[in-house]
Amino acid sequence: MRVRAPASSANLGPGFDTLAVALECYVSVEVEPAPSLRVHTEGEGASLFDDASHLAARVVAEVLGHERFSVSVRSQIPLARGLGSSAALAAAAAAAAGADDPFAIAAAHDGHPENAAASVFGGLVAATAVEGRPVYAPLPLSSDLTFVVVVPERNLSTPEARRVLPESLSRADVVFNLGRMGLLLAGLADPDHLAAAATEDRLHQPARGALFPEAGQILRGLIDAGALAACWSGAGPALVGIAREADASRVRDGAEQLLADTGIPGRVLAVGADRRGIVHGEDAEVPL
Amino acid sequence: MRVRAPASSANLGPGFDTLAVALECYVSVEVEPAPSLRVHTEGEGASLFDDASHLAARVVAEVLGHERFSVSVRSQIPLARGLGSSAALAAAAAAAAGADDPFAIAAAHDGHPENAAASVFGGLVAATAVEGRPVYAPLPLSSDLTFVVVVPERNLSTPEARRVLPESLSRADVVFNLGRMGLLLAGLADPDHLAAAATEDRLHQPARGALFPEAGQILRGLIDAGALAACWSGAGPALVGIAREADASRVRDGAEQLLADTGIPGRVLAVGADRRGIVHGEDAEVPL
Repeated sequence: MRVRAPASSANLGPGFDTLAVALECYVSVEVEPAPSLRVHTEGEGASLFDDASHLAARVVAEVLGHERFSVSVRSQIPLARGLGSSAALAAAAAAAAGADDPFAIAAAHDGHPENAAASVFGGLVAATAVEGRPVYAPLPLSSDLTFVVVVPERNLSTPEARRVLPESLSRADVVFNLGRMGLLLAGLADPDHLAAAATEDRLHQPARGALFPEAGQILRGLIDAGALAACWSGAGPALVGIAREADASRVRDGAEQLLADTGIPGRVLAVGADRRGIVHGEDAEVPL
Repeated sequence: MRVRAPASSANLGPGFDTLAVALECYVSVEVEPAPSLRVHTEGEGASLFDDASHLAARVVAEVLGHERFSVSVRSQIPLARGLGSSAALAAAAAAAAGADDPFAIAAAHDGHPENAAASVFGGLVAATAVEGRPVYAPLPLSSDLTFVVVVPERNLSTPEARRVLPESLSRADVVFNLGRMGLLLAGLADPDHLAAAATEDRLHQPARGALFPEAGQILRGLIDAGALAACWSGAGPALVGIAREADASRVRDGAEQLLADTGIPGRVLAVGADRRGIVHGEDAEVPL
């Protein structure tokens, strides 16, 4: 069986470890019976781990309880850039192996319920752990928004990106984040109310800026190019401008120029939100 | 000119100093020219401050720049119970005096942009200060929700309720609140996704429980009576059960029983969300 799952951008500024949006950028996983484990990979991340250590192989083996299968992975999702590639891969692999609850499996493997929920269910989601179990809920999301993703060719390890975070926040800073998150969710539901302040944050973005000094310039540049708001994607280094569809090409051009201006190698994706999450069968084709 | 404004419940669990919902419980303010200041009050809070120190008189005098007016206040909103009575009064008074921006005036007088925004614009709102100025945005709110408000006849001063708050939160506790706020806003938009965990909070409700020891029992009792979720209203002592309309009378009966069981004098309101905020003219009648 072949299953497709979307990439995702988590955090979106104030919603650290809580919010994520699924993006029209995909990975597919196909599982078939075989005498012994075989792993085949194409596209992003191809040939990096083509053995039993591949995340897709591990997830499928866990679901099936044996290793008598072949698994084929085709991916458009850049790895280790903050686009939820492992949550998407784990979700697709779990579903392709026939798991009852791909969300729980992807959340457990990836550690990020928000990326896992976006990849499994699509759209904009809130997700968190409640009494140790991953819980999610869908949030209203306007159909008029495009996500312009700047993907630098630069490594920023998630553990390092987590190490720099503050251990605690003052009450004023907590209220700052809660207030911005309210404005953000209002603005994602209705872009007439989406303002640049909505993706401000005091929990992770300022601290992570030290690991990626050009991030501030790129985020400001995305706004200048016409995005309504801009933020880090997950733990970075990808950065996202949130723009009205009518402004998307202008923002994409601006983003390309920002990469050129800062001398950072990389690429720009301008994609809509994925609304479907996991899909099976013929719809699960991923062109490369 | 007569203007009506609704009461509001702020915080709603995780959304401390950020979220508020306007309630179908009102205050009206009528302003007319007069040789010198006269204050007339009816209903809740009547005769407490019938002079120039009355909040409505102070707001009207500020907007008009003189004291040659009479102001009449009719209120259904219990005072000092956490239902945003002063934000509603300031909003209605500012609008009745012809102010251009009743939201900014009410937020400045009350100190709570979230209560002020709910009273001025109605519905569910996010509000916060951005660069020192109050900003608000409307959030999606299902029409199927009723707010069952337990109003104890007990004083709980807002300054005292603020003094007990923690000065800082661990990162885990911040993520706890952000996650619950995401679940809450999903659930208020679509009650199919509203669960009791969504109004959990680590910023104010646990600390304030010490000031109102029966609060935990009443919050749990509201859930047991059929509310989907339950939380403090503002700084309390009012508590709110959020229920589907079909369950509202059952939850209201349960709430009456909780007051009887705990021996706390008080009353219960079961009201819908107000969707209009400030209204002028004939619609601004407030029956007492």
